[in-house]
Amino acid sequence: MELDFIRWLVQRVSAQSAGACLIGDDAAVLPREQFRDCVVATDLLADGVHFRLSEVGPEVVGRKALAVNLSDLAAMAAKPRAAFVSLLLPEGSAAEIARRLLEGMFPLADQFQVQIAGGDTNVWRGPLVINVAVVGDADPNRVWRRSGVRPGDALVVTGRLGGSILRHHLDFVPRIAASQYLLAHYDVHAAIDLSDGLSLDAWRLAAASRCAIELDEDAVPISEDAARLAQISPQQGTAWERAMNDGEDFELLLAVSEAESRKLMLDENLGLPCSLIGRAVRGAGLWLRSSAGELREIEPRGYEH
Amino acid sequence: MELDFIRWLVQRVSAQSAGACLIGDDAAVLPREQFRDCVVATDLLADGVHFRLSEVGPEVVGRKALAVNLSDLAAMAAKPRAAFVSLLLPEGSAAEIARRLLEGMFPLADQFQVQIAGGDTNVWRGPLVINVAVVGDADPNRVWRRSGVRPGDALVVTGRLGGSILRHHLDFVPRIAASQYLLAHYDVHAAIDLSDGLSLDAWRLAAASRCAIELDEDAVPISEDAARLAQISPQQGTAWERAMNDGEDFELLLAVSEAESRKLMLDENLGLPCSLIGRAVRGAGLWLRSSAGELREIEPRGYEH
Repeated sequence: MELDFIRWLVQRVSAQSAGACLIGDDAAVLPREQFRDCVVATDLLADGVHFRLSEVGPEVVGRKALAVNLSDLAAMAAKPRAAFVSLLLPEGSAAEIARRLLEGMFPLADQFQVQIAGGDTNVWRGPLVINVAVVGDADPNRVWRRSGVRPGDALVVTGRLGGSILRHHLDFVPRIAASQYLLAHYDVHAAIDLSDGLSLDAWRLAAASRCAIELDEDAVPISEDAARLAQISPQQGTAWERAMNDGEDFELLLAVSEAESRKLMLDENLGLPCSLIGRAVRGAGLWLRSSAGELREIEPRGYEH
Repeated sequence: MELDFIRWLVQRVSAQSAGACLIGDDAAVLPREQFRDCVVATDLLADGVHFRLSEVGPEVVGRKALAVNLSDLAAMAAKPRAAFVSLLLPEGSAAEIARRLLEGMFPLADQFQVQIAGGDTNVWRGPLVINVAVVGDADPNRVWRRSGVRPGDALVVTGRLGGSILRHHLDFVPRIAASQYLLAHYDVHAAIDLSDGLSLDAWRLAAASRCAIELDEDAVPISEDAARLAQISPQQGTAWERAMNDGEDFELLLAVSEAESRKLMLDENLGLPCSLIGRAVRGAGLWLRSSAGELREIEPRGYEH
């Protein structure tokens, strides 16, 4: 199966990249002109754990496997350049699944000018497993790290949160464009992408920066899907709880100075909604400020993969 | 399981790299000073397909998963810098397997100064799956590609071939040191690492370079394990057939000028045996020259993963 698939992939990738195909050697060579610092992320997804192949189909899985990695690069202010796709395919329909996975990946790769530059294909009797590694370029002096939050910073989140399981986790747009826009126009101190829920990821940001983060209870932006799920299954949490704790939002949580946050709240060029949800202060842990001004510490309750 | 493992890994990696741990953010940032061209390889291994975890143990699997990638970089004349490890672990013993995999990987990483710089851990009910991606540095003008063979070139192979299944496929030393030595002292036109058997990989080298390769039947270096296996299971092929067709030798097949090959055959500093096994000529395909001088075309018969 592998030789045929590689032949197809080489043709497909050559079409994507105007002939400059990197596939077909022992490794891919990414030209030095494309990189300053080299930023690398990798994510593995498995059928039955991260998705159900029989329900969503290979195209959606391929797109998601690339998208989660692009979200990681967005959180570092890196521009993605190349992706490497390792497949472990169920025998029988291996070739068809492989092609459809890649077909689902190409539109997203094209959108953000990411070259599919290599990978590995294998067949077995188990369920589909896909690993994608992405390599991006970043300005050495302007990479966003989790550890850069400063007491006094404002915390800003893109988009609306919660209820991702309804559909958003499969069709979200990784925040590459917003990240590159923010990089060009703002001084962002720190960032993280929300993959495991706002509460856990905000707690991680605080821990990495050795400070405390206070979130304003009323400021957390709740998605329509979180509200819908709260109506359908109220026993599984309110819409607000879902916005706080549901995983796979793949939005950006950013720390900026208070002045920058005011500018950002008025900026219509970012192209997506943005909410000021809290601030960093001296101390440790994650805290919630009620509308009455009461402060209480909360345990992160995000989804752990 | 993930948080504990990551904590352990961060400590372990910090010890490895004198405090400069890259793990703990959304992605790893590899400093531009470490790279000219950026060379990337990735390989996925699964229990029951590429190894049997219950027979060999996690340490051996971890080592192999890194080693196969380093072999790919050796074949490109790249110096490995960083490795990214994605794990899909069987539930129940996930944490123990993860630690032992990494413990098996660290000695090899240390030997070739490769930093474990990131990854992804997941747990499921299926067998162990491990993907490693490595990023290396190469001189843009001196990368070895499969396509660089010129008619008239001599074909040289490192080590002895065949019978890898007995043990070599689990304990082989990737030819990074030999590759870097050859890069410094020789003009290598093309290279490939022997992962799928000499006949298939030599055929690939010929195809990529749009030339024919003639191998001298008597010159193929046969390993002791190939001879041993031929004695144990003669019905599965002669020692010579094993040297031609067995996979996972992870030796280098190199194309150099005839003059360079003569120099190389006398070079005692390479540190491993080296054999002149044939030549490239105009034409296509893989050919075998008998001791009587007869030439016949052969079909590649390597193991396809």
